[in-house]
Amino acid sequence: MSAGERELIKRIRGSVGTPGPATIVGIGDDAAVFEPAPGLGLITCDAFVDGVHFRRDFATLSDIGTKCMIANVSDIAAMGGFPTRAVVSLCIPEHITESDVSSIYDGMLSVCRRFSFEIVGGDIVSSPKDLVISIALMGAASRDRIVTRSGAVVGDAIMVTGQIGGSEAGLRALAAGFPQEGAVLAAVRRHLRPTPRIAEAQAFLDVATPHAMIDISDGLGSELWLLAEESGVGLRIREDLIPVDECARAVADELGCSALELAMGSGEEFELVVAIPQPEMSRTVEHVAAVTGTTATYIGDVVGAVQGCSLVRSDGSVEPLERSGYEHLGGV
Amino acid sequence: MSAGERELIKRIRGSVGTPGPATIVGIGDDAAVFEPAPGLGLITCDAFVDGVHFRRDFATLSDIGTKCMIANVSDIAAMGGFPTRAVVSLCIPEHITESDVSSIYDGMLSVCRRFSFEIVGGDIVSSPKDLVISIALMGAASRDRIVTRSGAVVGDAIMVTGQIGGSEAGLRALAAGFPQEGAVLAAVRRHLRPTPRIAEAQAFLDVATPHAMIDISDGLGSELWLLAEESGVGLRIREDLIPVDECARAVADELGCSALELAMGSGEEFELVVAIPQPEMSRTVEHVAAVTGTTATYIGDVVGAVQGCSLVRSDGSVEPLERSGYEHLGGV
Repeated sequence: MSAGERELIKRIRGSVGTPGPATIVGIGDDAAVFEPAPGLGLITCDAFVDGVHFRRDFATLSDIGTKCMIANVSDIAAMGGFPTRAVVSLCIPEHITESDVSSIYDGMLSVCRRFSFEIVGGDIVSSPKDLVISIALMGAASRDRIVTRSGAVVGDAIMVTGQIGGSEAGLRALAAGFPQEGAVLAAVRRHLRPTPRIAEAQAFLDVATPHAMIDISDGLGSELWLLAEESGVGLRIREDLIPVDECARAVADELGCSALELAMGSGEEFELVVAIPQPEMSRTVEHVAAVTGTTATYIGDVVGAVQGCSLVRSDGSVEPLERSGYEHLGGV
Repeated sequence: MSAGERELIKRIRGSVGTPGPATIVGIGDDAAVFEPAPGLGLITCDAFVDGVHFRRDFATLSDIGTKCMIANVSDIAAMGGFPTRAVVSLCIPEHITESDVSSIYDGMLSVCRRFSFEIVGGDIVSSPKDLVISIALMGAASRDRIVTRSGAVVGDAIMVTGQIGGSEAGLRALAAGFPQEGAVLAAVRRHLRPTPRIAEAQAFLDVATPHAMIDISDGLGSELWLLAEESGVGLRIREDLIPVDECARAVADELGCSALELAMGSGEEFELVVAIPQPEMSRTVEHVAAVTGTTATYIGDVVGAVQGCSLVRSDGSVEPLERSGYEHLGGV
């Protein structure tokens, strides 16, 4: 390791800061040691590869670090938990400078500060070509507040938080080189700095009994299918209820494509899809809006598995729900 | 995801098997959910890159998966803990087949079975060029059995488990294309399938009060320096006491290089370096051998920081201890 590299690692340790009291050994030993949080433990991981999951000509390395961490926080949110501690592996090709690594960490640490958790360890290795950011995030959840993907039952209402489509719209606007103003700027911001729905998931849990929950990593179409398959149910989703983001509509108009299709396939939205009992719907909508400022929208119903997953068009016609979204091989 | 890829993920889920009773949600949801083990929690992570950390012409993908997991288990061992759960991110370029991915998992799972822990989640993503295996491993340890790198005090004895140098000897023998027989075969085996020292660490803790412990990931020279720096002490290591592996001596002879230098810089040994009070030394050597069959060897002493880290040569001359070993940027 060069003196510069030693300096880099020292700088990262400095910027990560002193760990909280429950972290007994933080960065810099063979492993981090901590007092487990009360309740159940959670763990998730995601890897992000330059040119596959992000483009350096579209985002700063700080944006990229931010979004990689957000993607993991979103997974913890979707289980009903809170993030506690992360470990980070960076694989860096020669062209990545020490200042670049610091920028990635700055982005990740901004998420840590916002959601009150720590980076407690990591690894920086060289790679021949690809920049890879690999994060494992631990979390904690109350025993009675865990929500899986697999508990939806016939009769449940399907809800989605926020508005959908902005992330994909922002990506396409960047790819098309649209001037960043108005709706385009809103979409680009949505793409670069999405919000993981920790508070919204908790708000659902405060007033309702969510049967199933999943975050939109790869696209609403794709996540609805996953939720249906894992729960062994069918879904009947209504096109006219899907809360397509205004900025996505504007970008879709500009591109001459369907705003709905763009929204259904939009990855990295990090909104939540939640199945709750129908009678809990109206109080949930009210409570989620009141405590988080985020809308929760009813978009359809859970039906029997034999009915499959379908989309009811605005004209009343029914067609199979497209499994739209990004697929990078997938989660194990 | 193609039908083949879905099949792959299904196959991996199948080979990982049903999780133990403390794992409430295993593979296949947004995050895994588990009942934390009693005591303190541990977490470590390591990334392994094709062409940097391993060579596919020297090892099968099952060997590679095995060693990546072993490296993480070794970090948990060096803290005084036991592995509990792992998550795995694979970044796979186009030339990696589904059968290749299964082989990597087969190797990793062989380590899980041997040390009674689980893979509870993961991510498989495509990469433009580099094959990257990134593992985060959780562990557990009793509150009174955590050992850091930073507690060595003046007067401690420095011990090392097993024999040193076989891993580097195996790597160099593979690079030189030596016929795999006798000492070369032993060295190659040592390189491909090292043993993490979970049982040995526990044996130390059973009869002694280790002040500091670190595993040999990058090389004995490098780890001794880390232990000294983190503990704020100096070390006086005796060349004639270092347990150089017989197979490493034979390969060094063949290569015409110094067996000691080869041993001091040999990475991925996964032996433990332990600082214990001098009076506990003899009973520790006996107990570690009795319960694990592994030798623990006294190699030198902890001295004051002002004396620095030195190597006492067989002829009695003293020289600075070389910081030899692999440096892939390093741990954060």
